[in-house]
Amino acid sequence: MIYFDNAATSFPKPEAVIEAMADYFFNIGGSTGRSGHRLAIKASELVFNTRELLARLFQIKDSARIIFTKNVTEGLNIAINGFLEKGDQVVTTSMEHNSVMRPLRYLEQRGQIKIFTVRANREGLVDPAAFADILKKEKIKLVVVNHASNVTGSIAPVATISEIAHRYGSRILVDAAQTAGAYPVDAASGDIDMLAFTGHKSLLGPQGTGGLYVREGIELSPIVRGGTGSNSEREIQPDFLPDQFESGTLNIIGLAGLGAGVQYVLEKGVSNIRREEMKLTGMFIKEAGKIEGVELYGPGDMDKRVSVVSFNISRCAPSTVAYLLDKRFDIACRSGLHCAPAAHNTIGTHPRGTVRFAFGCFNNAAEVAKGLTALAEISRKEMVN
Amino acid sequence: MIYFDNAATSFPKPEAVIEAMADYFFNIGGSTGRSGHRLAIKASELVFNTRELLARLFQIKDSARIIFTKNVTEGLNIAINGFLEKGDQVVTTSMEHNSVMRPLRYLEQRGQIKIFTVRANREGLVDPAAFADILKKEKIKLVVVNHASNVTGSIAPVATISEIAHRYGSRILVDAAQTAGAYPVDAASGDIDMLAFTGHKSLLGPQGTGGLYVREGIELSPIVRGGTGSNSEREIQPDFLPDQFESGTLNIIGLAGLGAGVQYVLEKGVSNIRREEMKLTGMFIKEAGKIEGVELYGPGDMDKRVSVVSFNISRCAPSTVAYLLDKRFDIACRSGLHCAPAAHNTIGTHPRGTVRFAFGCFNNAAEVAKGLTALAEISRKEMVN
Repeated sequence: MIYFDNAATSFPKPEAVIEAMADYFFNIGGSTGRSGHRLAIKASELVFNTRELLARLFQIKDSARIIFTKNVTEGLNIAINGFLEKGDQVVTTSMEHNSVMRPLRYLEQRGQIKIFTVRANREGLVDPAAFADILKKEKIKLVVVNHASNVTGSIAPVATISEIAHRYGSRILVDAAQTAGAYPVDAASGDIDMLAFTGHKSLLGPQGTGGLYVREGIELSPIVRGGTGSNSEREIQPDFLPDQFESGTLNIIGLAGLGAGVQYVLEKGVSNIRREEMKLTGMFIKEAGKIEGVELYGPGDMDKRVSVVSFNISRCAPSTVAYLLDKRFDIACRSGLHCAPAAHNTIGTHPRGTVRFAFGCFNNAAEVAKGLTALAEISRKEMVN
Repeated sequence: MIYFDNAATSFPKPEAVIEAMADYFFNIGGSTGRSGHRLAIKASELVFNTRELLARLFQIKDSARIIFTKNVTEGLNIAINGFLEKGDQVVTTSMEHNSVMRPLRYLEQRGQIKIFTVRANREGLVDPAAFADILKKEKIKLVVVNHASNVTGSIAPVATISEIAHRYGSRILVDAAQTAGAYPVDAASGDIDMLAFTGHKSLLGPQGTGGLYVREGIELSPIVRGGTGSNSEREIQPDFLPDQFESGTLNIIGLAGLGAGVQYVLEKGVSNIRREEMKLTGMFIKEAGKIEGVELYGPGDMDKRVSVVSFNISRCAPSTVAYLLDKRFDIACRSGLHCAPAAHNTIGTHPRGTVRFAFGCFNNAAEVAKGLTALAEISRKEMVN
């Protein structure tokens, strides 16, 4: 099967990932921070190592400021619910995933916060000046920005937006679900206050992993409290990182795998991975654009996007295209709204949705060519019918 | 190494667990509920299968009422924070883990709830009549009970407590962290309203898995909102289970492993596993009680406990005993307060803590004998010094 569903979860992943998990499974097995025996210490070292690798990847000085979560959604919820208080105002964009919009809308509906939205253009690109326009007029506590859209692949200029946010005394939360491992994410030069990421997409780790980086000086209230292996004599949650946000047993075997995934990414280099993925993306966009009936969405400028590409075939429902790709061409992709309804409103594909190809670092040009052939054939047949 | 730290996480686990994970890793890889291609459908089937196996194990009719969480702590937090409202009153026990006490104390400190505590006896056993005494006098919304203590192994008579709770119009939340897979947990006959469990202890699955069963008719507010692959056109969290509480990508590879673990438990049979574990526990308690200087905690009656045993060696700090067991005898255990300070107050071991042995289904009598020899030797040497 040709797998173009890497924006949902990457597949395949480096064998080193499952090898690291199996090594933990057979040879370590212990829990972290709870016991002092040698297997428990090995487990703690393993988790520490993964934290350090992520800190290196994201240019974060103190790896203890990275808290592990089960997915990026949990990280975003911790940041949003933990940082915002009654009466706060937020700026976000029309390209956000429901992992950002659902927690925000919930707070809005309860009268806790007010949301201002920067509308992206038809390519899914946001203009930093639009953030400044709002921040100039309104007292904004937090700016929430999707680093790259899971619908259009369009990249938001995070460093510029961050500079604007800070100029007006606001903080920035970046959703790096589609960029971590696929596009440079630099917390230092991007001056990022909070960064949520997932482990199982371009970081090539297993599901059940992800995290949130919280810059020093930012105080969050946790949403889950419990045993942390620290301050065990007290029935009060510890107030230091990462323990404050890591109650209960961590996904240690998953973090073993994530460490191997991040190691792979570091060794290959994010810029090299990006170059290869964008070569495929460029090839696909150029050729797909020539197929009659195919409409492409997202930026034409390859520098302004990642390898996530949405398209439609005229008169054919996205779900039909995806079905035909699966059944007749052995190609895995995703169709629908991709949990980001506002993004489809922005690019004019609501409620129809789109078909989405997301190329990963294990795809190659031959697969893309097969994808193009399939689209041409589907388009031809559908137009005849 | 002899591993007696099964109450922290079980080790080893059946090979079928890592095999199921590797099978997902190499042959499935897709995400659930997001895409329609065959790998995604296989992933959804796999997650459904694990849910069904758990429903069978816990005697739950509708497996959709089981929501997956990253650990038991998250499940307990969802239940506590999602069910309790300002002004509510709660009954709990003096044997609870911080995964229950920290979320409860937080709500109490903020003036949201009032907590009544049933004090266990020195063996860690609670008297159901003590629950009735409180429920008779006070309007209680929720009773929270640790099914078996992670300090003393003492079992709470959940079905009796549940009957009392329901008689007075209250609901019951059971923390099955130390029982699921090791002692019968029957949501039907126990008339349990909410049941939180972990996947990586006696269910023999990997870390990063666990869940919460929520009986029909109980409405909870989620603590995390986001993409669920359902109702994607709306920026409002869906209100049906399990989606309402499963935002973001699930730990699919972990759930593949958990399914294999639960399958193993079902095939072996919980009562058979319990019989074997209790044989070792009985042997240990009987013999350890004869060693001079060893003080044992928890019920003497084997029917009232699980295979978690706390003890101390006089004049020797628990951490020293654990250190010696690790370094000189190659035995892994845990020492300290085990994230349950009130339990130590109850049994008189606060702030010293205890040494904890927790026997699992892969331990055997020869290992227990070695453990006993080690304790005798440590005790002898410590008493000479």
